[in-house]
Amino acid sequence: MTTSLADRIDAANAEALRRIESADPVLVGLRAARDVIPPLHDRALLHAGPPAAPEDFCGPMRGAALGAMVYEGWAATQEAAGDLLARGAVTLHCTHDWGVVGPMAGIVSPSMPLLEIADRAHGLTAYAPINEGIGPVLRFGAYNAAVLARLRWLQDVLAPALDGALRRMGGLPLVPVMARALTMGDEMHQRNVAASSLFYRAVAPALAEGDLAGETLASVLRFLADNDQFFLNLAMAAAKAVMTSVREIPYCTVVSVMSRNGVEFGIRVSGLGDRWFTAPAPTPSGLYFPGFTGDDANPDMGDSAIIEALGLGGFAMAAAPAVVGFVGLPAVGEALTITRTMGEITVGRSTRFKIPALEFEGAPTGIDARRVVRLEVTPVINTGIAHRQPGVGQIGAGVVRAPLAVFQEALAAFATQYAEGAADAESA
Amino acid sequence: MTTSLADRIDAANAEALRRIESADPVLVGLRAARDVIPPLHDRALLHAGPPAAPEDFCGPMRGAALGAMVYEGWAATQEAAGDLLARGAVTLHCTHDWGVVGPMAGIVSPSMPLLEIADRAHGLTAYAPINEGIGPVLRFGAYNAAVLARLRWLQDVLAPALDGALRRMGGLPLVPVMARALTMGDEMHQRNVAASSLFYRAVAPALAEGDLAGETLASVLRFLADNDQFFLNLAMAAAKAVMTSVREIPYCTVVSVMSRNGVEFGIRVSGLGDRWFTAPAPTPSGLYFPGFTGDDANPDMGDSAIIEALGLGGFAMAAAPAVVGFVGLPAVGEALTITRTMGEITVGRSTRFKIPALEFEGAPTGIDARRVVRLEVTPVINTGIAHRQPGVGQIGAGVVRAPLAVFQEALAAFATQYAEGAADAESA
Repeated sequence: MTTSLADRIDAANAEALRRIESADPVLVGLRAARDVIPPLHDRALLHAGPPAAPEDFCGPMRGAALGAMVYEGWAATQEAAGDLLARGAVTLHCTHDWGVVGPMAGIVSPSMPLLEIADRAHGLTAYAPINEGIGPVLRFGAYNAAVLARLRWLQDVLAPALDGALRRMGGLPLVPVMARALTMGDEMHQRNVAASSLFYRAVAPALAEGDLAGETLASVLRFLADNDQFFLNLAMAAAKAVMTSVREIPYCTVVSVMSRNGVEFGIRVSGLGDRWFTAPAPTPSGLYFPGFTGDDANPDMGDSAIIEALGLGGFAMAAAPAVVGFVGLPAVGEALTITRTMGEITVGRSTRFKIPALEFEGAPTGIDARRVVRLEVTPVINTGIAHRQPGVGQIGAGVVRAPLAVFQEALAAFATQYAEGAADAESA
Repeated sequence: MTTSLADRIDAANAEALRRIESADPVLVGLRAARDVIPPLHDRALLHAGPPAAPEDFCGPMRGAALGAMVYEGWAATQEAAGDLLARGAVTLHCTHDWGVVGPMAGIVSPSMPLLEIADRAHGLTAYAPINEGIGPVLRFGAYNAAVLARLRWLQDVLAPALDGALRRMGGLPLVPVMARALTMGDEMHQRNVAASSLFYRAVAPALAEGDLAGETLASVLRFLADNDQFFLNLAMAAAKAVMTSVREIPYCTVVSVMSRNGVEFGIRVSGLGDRWFTAPAPTPSGLYFPGFTGDDANPDMGDSAIIEALGLGGFAMAAAPAVVGFVGLPAVGEALTITRTMGEITVGRSTRFKIPALEFEGAPTGIDARRVVRLEVTPVINTGIAHRQPGVGQIGAGVVRAPLAVFQEALAAFATQYAEGAADAESA
């Protein structure tokens, strides 16, 4: 009597769901990137998405890389930084290879402070940089003096203050914050106003208990208060910590990573470990801010689709009627349809992330690459739209569908790797 | 050619809706009650709801009154306070007669700080005491040492700090906060977590810019952060400021006040000015905290039903799926039905308070006493349930229907006052 491949896959996927459901991501503090990411001991940068060579960087990613190099003092000007980058004097690594997630360009340099999330259930760690707010920001490829000054302020003032507050608090468990925010209209990708507010209420008293006072304390509180999307990076790092628990489960067809570098869209599938499956990054459809059109849009970018891999963002659209118009959908009812449809391609429903408008049904969780291919229903990702030129910034928001090809390629590779039951996998 | 009574009523009600829609309530600061409420220059108390004599006070209201008298130093003990009250040595006034609203017992004494809301569109002002948080609190009739110590801390520490912050901010317009909170799952009566969080983000930086520092600042930030219902009293005072603009419009059948004192339920109708129409206060049906039953419940009490008079709370139930279970309704779908039904008895839909789950339809606004009587559909009020003994506190939450009799009485009085067209009013 043998166990069929389909049974093994089902068991592996059930194990993946158990791990996702039992994860306990806690924001413990902030660390300098160089202290926790080994390759950043040297002159190196991380970037979002699947691997990309500097000559292939899209505009915003190139802008962000040059800005980070000036911020680090490796070059005095953007031109000098460009020369260094072209000469290969800076090593590049993928964020996801080091448990890091960054929105948009996702550029991380050694001096940047990273939010540290520990999954206390599985002993895993993940990181994200601090959200810079809106307007000209590095993640969209802006690198003017104000952008770099803000990065230094984040490093010198905000990060130590927030780290101190979090350590006094003994860390902040993120699942309760996220679960509550879902009942307050966030889907945790394009809308984090509730989570950011709840986070703020949690840390502000502890910030006041620290060494800061007067204007400096007020500036920290104001920076956090003024950013409705501050929590996005926390949600991303929490999702990365959770999804790292399913990074490599034999026979598992659950998608552990979805990400984009502005040129390619890539996924990883648990049973295939850290291998990337990529296709050209699609351009989101959505609404553009006044003065911009689809011609200005960069193809989709950033690690933020880890939110959807966990079952939030587009998957939890029904929780966030207010995001519907923002991403260009015609009616709130559409959000319910999207969440229900995403339920067709996932291995289960969250017992922790509940959606009020669906009578508190759980968010669809754990994308099953098999179902995506079989049903030809691809994951819906809520996303910001970047201008294709570095430095312009966000020009809209919309919805993008993950390209079917990456799931097909992954499933083909899966069939090869687990060859003895390839036929079963196809028909499972 | 004459204008029929029905036409006059319609025109008056349209004017009421215009005033409600154009009101601009702004939290400008805090004031000692004695400085803004003339009768509180003397030894006097305000209480919630229609007029009540001390011998008729329900348990929680009596407890709150005695506690406030000790807090004021009028008596050293509850017993001595009870003697003073029985002797008539303390004058009693209705909150609503002085533009004040207080939740539950609604007891306001001269030294208490009041939140001051100015309707900048109509030059009107309304007040509410500061929400004390949960557990043993004066508004539920608790009067132990900890309750009185908290009242003194509110007076000595929180109120001056918050007042300073608000004055530095130039005041805080409340409609935008309330409108946003409605898109975040608050209905603004039994659920204010979003509004409280948004309010917190707005004031915390300004608090840090004041004179407070270290532990004292942290204690203020922590008190505000720990109270999900802090905004309730602000919503009440904002609603009172708005509804004061329709306090006395000839021919208007819009309900300007709904309130309860724990014994009687009362309403005022715009065209009849400040006259009360009362009936016995119903007991809410809902869910009780563990260890309590309906036998422990006090009849409905407090000025908070001003929220429903504005078209929020029960009327906006569809905005707050998470409140549905809390008040004991069987399913989220029920919330949609309640909001739609309340739309049958109101004069219009808010253009500012939108409900995401209803495709951003406005909340039903301005209760028309005529429609209540004609349809026999009474206003739904979301409410907390108090223990009938003073000092026990909240024992549950639920839904209560305003008694039909008060609307019938009001309409009869309306017909008498506007006698020339009584028949028209009936058939309008």
